[in-house]
Amino acid sequence: MKDAINIDYALSAELIENIKKDPMGDWFDIPDNHSKEELQKIKEVAEKVRNESDYLVCIGIGGSYLGARAIYEALDLSETAKCKLLFAGNSMSSRALKKVLKKIEGKDFSINVISKSGTTLEPAIAFRVLKQALIDKYGEEGAKKRIVATTDPETGALHDEAKKNGYETFEIPFGVGGRYSVLTAVGLFPLAVAGCNIDKLLEGARNCKDTQLNLNALENSMLVSYAFSRFYLYDECGCDTEVLASFEPNLMYFNEWWKQLFGESEGKNHQGIFPASVIYSTDLHSLGQYMQEGRRNIFETFIKLSPEKDPLTVPDLKDDSDGLAYVEGKAFTEITDKALEATIKAHDAGGISTFTIEVLDSESESGISELSLGFLIFFFETACAMSSMLHGVNPFDQPGVEKYKKEMFHLLGKE
Amino acid sequence: MKDAINIDYALSAELIENIKKDPMGDWFDIPDNHSKEELQKIKEVAEKVRNESDYLVCIGIGGSYLGARAIYEALDLSETAKCKLLFAGNSMSSRALKKVLKKIEGKDFSINVISKSGTTLEPAIAFRVLKQALIDKYGEEGAKKRIVATTDPETGALHDEAKKNGYETFEIPFGVGGRYSVLTAVGLFPLAVAGCNIDKLLEGARNCKDTQLNLNALENSMLVSYAFSRFYLYDECGCDTEVLASFEPNLMYFNEWWKQLFGESEGKNHQGIFPASVIYSTDLHSLGQYMQEGRRNIFETFIKLSPEKDPLTVPDLKDDSDGLAYVEGKAFTEITDKALEATIKAHDAGGISTFTIEVLDSESESGISELSLGFLIFFFETACAMSSMLHGVNPFDQPGVEKYKKEMFHLLGKE
Repeated sequence: MKDAINIDYALSAELIENIKKDPMGDWFDIPDNHSKEELQKIKEVAEKVRNESDYLVCIGIGGSYLGARAIYEALDLSETAKCKLLFAGNSMSSRALKKVLKKIEGKDFSINVISKSGTTLEPAIAFRVLKQALIDKYGEEGAKKRIVATTDPETGALHDEAKKNGYETFEIPFGVGGRYSVLTAVGLFPLAVAGCNIDKLLEGARNCKDTQLNLNALENSMLVSYAFSRFYLYDECGCDTEVLASFEPNLMYFNEWWKQLFGESEGKNHQGIFPASVIYSTDLHSLGQYMQEGRRNIFETFIKLSPEKDPLTVPDLKDDSDGLAYVEGKAFTEITDKALEATIKAHDAGGISTFTIEVLDSESESGISELSLGFLIFFFETACAMSSMLHGVNPFDQPGVEKYKKEMFHLLGKE
Repeated sequence: MKDAINIDYALSAELIENIKKDPMGDWFDIPDNHSKEELQKIKEVAEKVRNESDYLVCIGIGGSYLGARAIYEALDLSETAKCKLLFAGNSMSSRALKKVLKKIEGKDFSINVISKSGTTLEPAIAFRVLKQALIDKYGEEGAKKRIVATTDPETGALHDEAKKNGYETFEIPFGVGGRYSVLTAVGLFPLAVAGCNIDKLLEGARNCKDTQLNLNALENSMLVSYAFSRFYLYDECGCDTEVLASFEPNLMYFNEWWKQLFGESEGKNHQGIFPASVIYSTDLHSLGQYMQEGRRNIFETFIKLSPEKDPLTVPDLKDDSDGLAYVEGKAFTEITDKALEATIKAHDAGGISTFTIEVLDSESESGISELSLGFLIFFFETACAMSSMLHGVNPFDQPGVEKYKKEMFHLLGKE
């Protein structure tokens, strides 16, 4: 941020209190107070699923999908998971569901259906299809043993079906909305199945809470600075689009999680910052021209993680006909580091504000770890809640999504 | 478009002439005038590669990457290709390149390196690494026979290397810029290797040219209407963000191709429509709230393709505890169709303008075909060029991308 803005630290402390008091603010406690019994149960059920399945098919949409997928892809868990994740019921596409059915053909699989109500259309229709596939393979009783339902603890169609059939269940806490739920069983269970260290994920979130929300040191908080700077750029400088950027192709689905978090929290009352994302350096050869010379009422937020410990280096060749002598022998990570520095400098000079969120984990081999991702999750959840409140909107509801649904149900003949 | 806008058809005819006359407008002729000899050569070399490779590694970035990937993914070619495509050199990520190296371990592979100059950093460093892997497996002479270079026909580092070593080569025509090059050998060669019917792709582009640019019937042209409506929304109505939307998860990379096309063409002089994209219904549970109730200076462009011919249907169950009786027995495609209709209606009512580009191919089993994609490619390329000209910018250059590069080269010690 070039401009020194005045952050109202008393207000930031107040906003943190508001989050804690909000009936839908229970996600805020999770890093400190996640139930040890539930964590233990998650790991035990995950082990059972892992031992009897090649695939866990995760059926869910929105917040019941994006968080788990974000972490699964960011950590490259598909490369090491004994039981891999497949994602279904996150669209209405027959084509997409057929691909999942093809993948599980001849394989052992289990289902984790994640839906507060059990009546959301996309996961519900996918669950019908996949449940049939499960029954075809294992019979009615066998199928029941292979379904894990993550749903409302007390009511709803999925809760009732789970109770009636004896499915293993996990709770979606009442005080946690979908887009804030990745650190509940919604995300933690499938991630545990895939081999994620969920304790480290929560530890990363705790680190964020401890370092960024220390009421005696809010002036040092990157989180508070980010939340207030975003609002300042929107409110005072007319910046209406935020572009989340990184040089990490692994963060593609993390970007999608971030876009739901911010877009669904803030896009209300005909206002709000439009959330977009890029992956560099790929998109420097795509949206890069726009970032450098398009309209200036955008701003850019970079995520910077640790470099991988054993990166590829540019091979030495006998000749330099490709003009690459200046990078011969250099690690790809060093080139990326310079490219990041150069991009920030060029975009600053081009007239847009940039913000860098650096989350390092020096122990991590790959540079992207449960610690750093847990930190980022809690960072953005809290910053989003604070920023929404500055915008004067409720961070935790999403009334607008009912409009198309109402029309769609009407067209489909639902009463 | 709710508002009836006055389209200046004489101007639209003039813009088409300007494209034809522009030195960088040669892509416009491709559907009618693609060299038969080159098409034949593409197919022959593709067959050779297919017969001796499990994988073709396509090394390229920006326009030398996004078009081929868009079509490859849209058509699900990885499911049927005898020789599958891998994409490398489209970022600086060591992690990403290691994944490609892991995939080709123990497999037969060839390389298609796509770069006008041969000195663009990302593909050049990837080429050094992958060439070494090729030499390690097949020896120096064997490797030369497995490299296909798509590059400048006369000069440049890659051209020179290809000539010296006897690589098979294809031309990137001088008068075609990267983001307009998918219907040249840049896209057609790798797609042919993967089993795409490239004749149909070109036929689709021809269909678009014939139906949309008939100078005697421009008033019926969806293309002209789209190009002028975009500009009208930006210039008169203050709409500064366009969201490309579809209910087709297969179009995820097509969306990326589209974002480069429009962002890199129009994002100049501190103005231009910011290009963003969504895939529904996934993103109705993510950005949907923003689309319904966020700031209103956005507009939405829907792509509608043919439904697949044999879609999944919602199974009948003995009980209706999930409340899905209203869709029992319905095809997923019918539900999607109603959802699309409902979404357009809801978003219209919410106060944003929507545009629908419908490209049907009734013969296609999957609904997404070479014919429809070829049509869409030429449609957007032409609309983008026209729209850029209306904005008063050159559609075919991208000066802004040099800024970060200059700084990066300086930091890396390049003279």
